[in-house]
Amino acid sequence: MDAFQRAVHQLSRLPGVGERTATRYAYWLLRQSPEVSAQLAASIAELREGIRECETCRDLAPASPCHRCRDIHRDHSLLCVVERPQDVGAIDASGEYRGAFHVLHGALSPLDGVGPEQLRLRELVARAGSTREVILATDPDVEGDTTALYIAKLLAPLGVRVTRLAHGLAVGTAIEFADRASLSRALQGRLPL
Amino acid sequence: MDAFQRAVHQLSRLPGVGERTATRYAYWLLRQSPEVSAQLAASIAELREGIRECETCRDLAPASPCHRCRDIHRDHSLLCVVERPQDVGAIDASGEYRGAFHVLHGALSPLDGVGPEQLRLRELVARAGSTREVILATDPDVEGDTTALYIAKLLAPLGVRVTRLAHGLAVGTAIEFADRASLSRALQGRLPL
Repeated sequence: MDAFQRAVHQLSRLPGVGERTATRYAYWLLRQSPEVSAQLAASIAELREGIRECETCRDLAPASPCHRCRDIHRDHSLLCVVERPQDVGAIDASGEYRGAFHVLHGALSPLDGVGPEQLRLRELVARAGSTREVILATDPDVEGDTTALYIAKLLAPLGVRVTRLAHGLAVGTAIEFADRASLSRALQGRLPL
Repeated sequence: MDAFQRAVHQLSRLPGVGERTATRYAYWLLRQSPEVSAQLAASIAELREGIRECETCRDLAPASPCHRCRDIHRDHSLLCVVERPQDVGAIDASGEYRGAFHVLHGALSPLDGVGPEQLRLRELVARAGSTREVILATDPDVEGDTTALYIAKLLAPLGVRVTRLAHGLAVGTAIEFADRASLSRALQGRLPL
């Protein structure tokens, strides 16, 4: 295998990248100035060295505890539980929430071999006791729902309030095009005006 | 900017990759074992070092002259002119052609500032004289057609036979769904049965 094929092979391991796309990336890199490849290679090599798992919220961050866990302007008696590190940024960006986070690093999925021991659940139980509310913000799919139910049961003995994000119609959706599951959730969760 | 944002920024420079996809790649890399990032980084860093432009056909290859130019089983009196290095592999894979290649590294496009001096045309003229046929395999679009016409005029004084790849219906196309341009070319180029 020559240098080109090696790069195509490595690039094609990225999620959603097949050999065609990897080849496109490799040819594009060859057309750029040498610094472009050098900078990309360096940033990938340094990616892991510069990132660790925060020992409190288990988010991936340059420091532990991370900047959110150190932030005294946040309400640390609120705990929002998410599946993935990227969910933290999305919820923060909504502007609606200024509490603490807990990253599970996955959702329960027996078919994929993901059981409770693969998730950061022990760490969650250790933290949840000292909070006044745990908001379950796992995905609105089978795995996310299962995980939310499992956590609710797990935290029940602590007596802490456990809530789940509201599900329903996405803002901007036309009802005629809404999927059946969202519409059904929207009806179940209807509120008085 | 921390290590993560730096990697996202660098990855988002790849063609067709936005910040969302770059973030997905970066998180995926973080979830893999450290060797995955290390191998990807190394292969990108070594990509340019291991590849040069063949001094004969201008293809990108680990050696110059490249393996195709050194191949004595090829008919070097036939010259197939393509826009990009990746076109060489595609035409080779058709199994229909066993001659030599010439890579232009682009197509004429005045709007994008690509003129004749940006393409490997001088090198083509120097080679074309000693061949019996030059096959123009530039893309069937405005830039490719313009480039083909330009090369045909450029090579006219040499008296060498210049041909263009046939255009028409792609194999497997249903006529009702064929685009107008392909259908028009298919009619112009119709052959007696």
